[in-house]
Amino acid sequence: MIKIDERLKMLRKLMKSKNIQAYIVNTSDPHNSEYIAERYKVREWISGFTGSAGTVVITEKEALLWTDGRYFIQAENEIKDSEFQLYKIATPGYPTYTQWLRENLSQGDIIGFDGEIMSQEEFESLEKGVGSKEIEYLYDSDLVGEIWEDRPKKPSTKAFIHELKYTGKSTKEKLDLVREMMEKDEMDYYLISSLDDIAWLYNIRGRDVKNNPVNISYTLISKNSANLYIDKNKIDTNVNKFLKENGVSIFKYEDIIEGIKNIKDDSSLYLDKERTNRWIYGNIDSNINIKSGINYTTTLKGRKNKTEIENQKNAYIKDGVALVKFLYWLENNIDKEKITEISAAKKLKALREKGEDYVEDSFDTISAYGENAAMMHYSATEETDAELNNKGLYLVDSGAQYYDGTTDITRTVALGELTEEEIKDFTLVLKGVIKLSNARFLHGSTGHSLDVLARYHLWQEGIDYKSGTGHGIGFMLNVHEGPHRIATVVNDIILEEGMITSIEPGVYRTKMHGIRIENIVVVQKDIKTDSGQFMKFETLSFVPIDKSAIDKNMLSKEEIQWINSYHKEVYNKLECFLSNDERKWLERETLPI
Amino acid sequence: MIKIDERLKMLRKLMKSKNIQAYIVNTSDPHNSEYIAERYKVREWISGFTGSAGTVVITEKEALLWTDGRYFIQAENEIKDSEFQLYKIATPGYPTYTQWLRENLSQGDIIGFDGEIMSQEEFESLEKGVGSKEIEYLYDSDLVGEIWEDRPKKPSTKAFIHELKYTGKSTKEKLDLVREMMEKDEMDYYLISSLDDIAWLYNIRGRDVKNNPVNISYTLISKNSANLYIDKNKIDTNVNKFLKENGVSIFKYEDIIEGIKNIKDDSSLYLDKERTNRWIYGNIDSNINIKSGINYTTTLKGRKNKTEIENQKNAYIKDGVALVKFLYWLENNIDKEKITEISAAKKLKALREKGEDYVEDSFDTISAYGENAAMMHYSATEETDAELNNKGLYLVDSGAQYYDGTTDITRTVALGELTEEEIKDFTLVLKGVIKLSNARFLHGSTGHSLDVLARYHLWQEGIDYKSGTGHGIGFMLNVHEGPHRIATVVNDIILEEGMITSIEPGVYRTKMHGIRIENIVVVQKDIKTDSGQFMKFETLSFVPIDKSAIDKNMLSKEEIQWINSYHKEVYNKLECFLSNDERKWLERETLPI
Repeated sequence: MIKIDERLKMLRKLMKSKNIQAYIVNTSDPHNSEYIAERYKVREWISGFTGSAGTVVITEKEALLWTDGRYFIQAENEIKDSEFQLYKIATPGYPTYTQWLRENLSQGDIIGFDGEIMSQEEFESLEKGVGSKEIEYLYDSDLVGEIWEDRPKKPSTKAFIHELKYTGKSTKEKLDLVREMMEKDEMDYYLISSLDDIAWLYNIRGRDVKNNPVNISYTLISKNSANLYIDKNKIDTNVNKFLKENGVSIFKYEDIIEGIKNIKDDSSLYLDKERTNRWIYGNIDSNINIKSGINYTTTLKGRKNKTEIENQKNAYIKDGVALVKFLYWLENNIDKEKITEISAAKKLKALREKGEDYVEDSFDTISAYGENAAMMHYSATEETDAELNNKGLYLVDSGAQYYDGTTDITRTVALGELTEEEIKDFTLVLKGVIKLSNARFLHGSTGHSLDVLARYHLWQEGIDYKSGTGHGIGFMLNVHEGPHRIATVVNDIILEEGMITSIEPGVYRTKMHGIRIENIVVVQKDIKTDSGQFMKFETLSFVPIDKSAIDKNMLSKEEIQWINSYHKEVYNKLECFLSNDERKWLERETLPI
Repeated sequence: MIKIDERLKMLRKLMKSKNIQAYIVNTSDPHNSEYIAERYKVREWISGFTGSAGTVVITEKEALLWTDGRYFIQAENEIKDSEFQLYKIATPGYPTYTQWLRENLSQGDIIGFDGEIMSQEEFESLEKGVGSKEIEYLYDSDLVGEIWEDRPKKPSTKAFIHELKYTGKSTKEKLDLVREMMEKDEMDYYLISSLDDIAWLYNIRGRDVKNNPVNISYTLISKNSANLYIDKNKIDTNVNKFLKENGVSIFKYEDIIEGIKNIKDDSSLYLDKERTNRWIYGNIDSNINIKSGINYTTTLKGRKNKTEIENQKNAYIKDGVALVKFLYWLENNIDKEKITEISAAKKLKALREKGEDYVEDSFDTISAYGENAAMMHYSATEETDAELNNKGLYLVDSGAQYYDGTTDITRTVALGELTEEEIKDFTLVLKGVIKLSNARFLHGSTGHSLDVLARYHLWQEGIDYKSGTGHGIGFMLNVHEGPHRIATVVNDIILEEGMITSIEPGVYRTKMHGIRIENIVVVQKDIKTDSGQFMKFETLSFVPIDKSAIDKNMLSKEEIQWINSYHKEVYNKLECFLSNDERKWLERETLPI
């Protein structure tokens, strides 16, 4: 019997002892983080499936795994020796997991799951999906935890202060802003579970989650108190003093439940159901008046202040220097030594690490050559690690955490001769970047309403990319953050001054090539006219765009102007940080087309 | 004492006798129509204010009128001799009418209004706005009706059949489609109150509302019955037979309440709260399970079938011919006779009436010269009626009801010399029309997500227009219909094959000029690629766009191509319906630029 089936056997024994008919294992952590610590990779441990998204349902007879199109092949491969069966999300013939539960459970059955790693939002959609049957939900049953013997401990890195010279606003000032919003909504308490929100609010950072410099914690705020629930070992004297001075009291991580239970009767409590787990939510007394909405802190931190933006600009210069050195190295060494996707990524990391105040990468570099780049979420493994040759396109999407900012940038470069289609696709992607970067838009516009500008030229040729066009980016925080987004999916978040977003259209041709050009921009005020206040994007990221992949004939006068003026700025910003040879290379790469 | 104050006195007497502390008069009819019959102009009768939107609140001491920015000046003027005070909507310092009620009423007070002319949606927002105070709502009190002695009767025009050769789908087929949607939603009954939905469903039309060829009626549908509630005098033997054959039973208009009350206990009922009045809604038994959503018929009629589209194309040729004759006449007579905004509109109407199957205009023509055109909703009156001279721009927005379609088109033409700004603005508007008309877009796109394409070039110059870019249009029905819309306001209605919409960007410079170019397009399938199904717009309306107002230097190659190929089509479609002189004129007007 293989390992996975043994685990299933143990789990079913436990289920039986607790009279649980169906046990759900979803993919999350207590804070509904995008990247999760090893301890919470419970779904992976029970199923053997290592993808980043999936839900498992186990009954006495069945062991089922739901995942989405990105992972069908990988999942089938990883579960093929176990009892698990794959259920394909958004595929005709496959019910959703809640539909499956509705169809297969009987009146009076019990569904178990670990409410600590399921958001209240997800739980409500589960309840709704299962429907009107009388089903009981045991949300405090972490059965996998009971059988997982060598389960990793909770991360326990030290918290550190993110200094005012970086953040531009003190913890006290931020707490004042939060309390203003609470008062406006007539809220007595405010619970935050999402880690980047807490890190932003208190100007502290940690290393609890790879790539995300956060501390695992909760916080509960009232008019007079700000309670941080965190493993006390993480807080040294210095941080302790800093938090105290800012009016923050420290409690044990587990005491959050007590904190919740101590909320005064008939009080009002604000929280975000998408970011609050079912276990916490289920412990809120029914006489508390809960209002759910987007975290106040998410709204506040989405708009970067002047200090943050200035710091961020500096971070992008460091990033640009690393990228230029990398591209120079690549061009000059591709014929001399064996370079693979993985070794190239390592080289880039080594160059980035030299940047002042570098902390870690902000996500795992996507280093993809040729047809590998057609997989939007490709991550090179030893099996797939392709060797780079002097033809075709190479895509590199990478970023870092610096004390003075979080970066994210993608360039696709020609390693040698390109096909006509590659050049055409590249130029269409570039036109999308320019059209959106250059857009003047009326205040009140959302990222959703502007999304079409990046797709327009691609759509005219019958090409689409199946991803958003842009995401918000944290400041020395998560590389993906809200509240705004540029995407075909509807959102009603207005693009406000200080919001930072990526602009990253692409073309992905299966088994052929993948192209993405990603710049980072910040929303700024533009002219004010009779028609109102207009806004614009200011570009923050500066790395040359490979001219050898551009068909100049496809560009308008304005587009040529944009690329030449962008390249001039790239040169001016970066040249003083380069060696003579690198500078000469950059000069050539940024000459007008 | 002036007339209005006398009416207020009578009303207050009635209010007192019924112990009503505040009486609301809003602007609507029992079917929440956009254009309302004389009988329902109650707000106008009680306040003296003739604008198309407004809400009146009357208490023992106060008489207040709320209206929006379009009408501030007009309203102040119209109420200046009466007791009424103006409350400006969306203006700092003025509460909304529900806020005012919340602040000025006391526990136990009674609010009265005629629930027949207030939608359930509006009522719920009233209740919510007034808040938690214990206020009673008397929704069956038409007090103004009791004192309005010579109140116009309900319209009583004859219903007539809209033949299958026009509609392309029989009443039976349409009822089947509706019942399919009911079954999918597990709905036992479906109530329709909106007049264009009923007219579409039963393939009947009437003349009860000016410009809107509808019959005042309700309908209640179940799996086995389709009951039409309508003044029986409107139904002649022929229509009676036609409806019977299609499974439709006829009841008295007033019997709708009985129909509602006869719904079986515990049944499910579908309706649209925005289109159902409070009086009807209030009469639904509390054990009926109501589901509110967009009318099924609105979704169905939004997508025109092939027959409707072919007919509509024909209607636009008739419209184009009338417009070309009009523009030819205008150019050749402006120096010879006195032409004013009103006389020009009359001339256009006379030309349109000659079109085969013409029924009536689809809205009051906007005929606006020079600075008058800067008012987006301008309607020439004897006081404002400007004389047209051979300089500047003239805007004409007009349309008709033909048996084979409803039209709507706007052209702005140069009557002589133009300023540089006029030419630049005109060209920017044209670029918007072209960009959107020419767009290929992925299936799944909404009008909201494409709106920016029409504004893009204007925004780059710091200009916006404060209106939507496009609205749906009925088929021998209302000139404005849903469910789709092209606008900055968020909507999630996907643009589907067969949907007809206007494309009408503009520039409106106060005291200077107004420019709007409006074409009508239908959504069609375009190519299907690896990226999915793409869609496109096919233009239906054909009238030359004034070349003398275009700055060719501002146009791209593609834009010049579009205008030349559009003009070629205009000529080919219309030339055979014109006199020799008109044809020569059109030939010149449609020569390539």
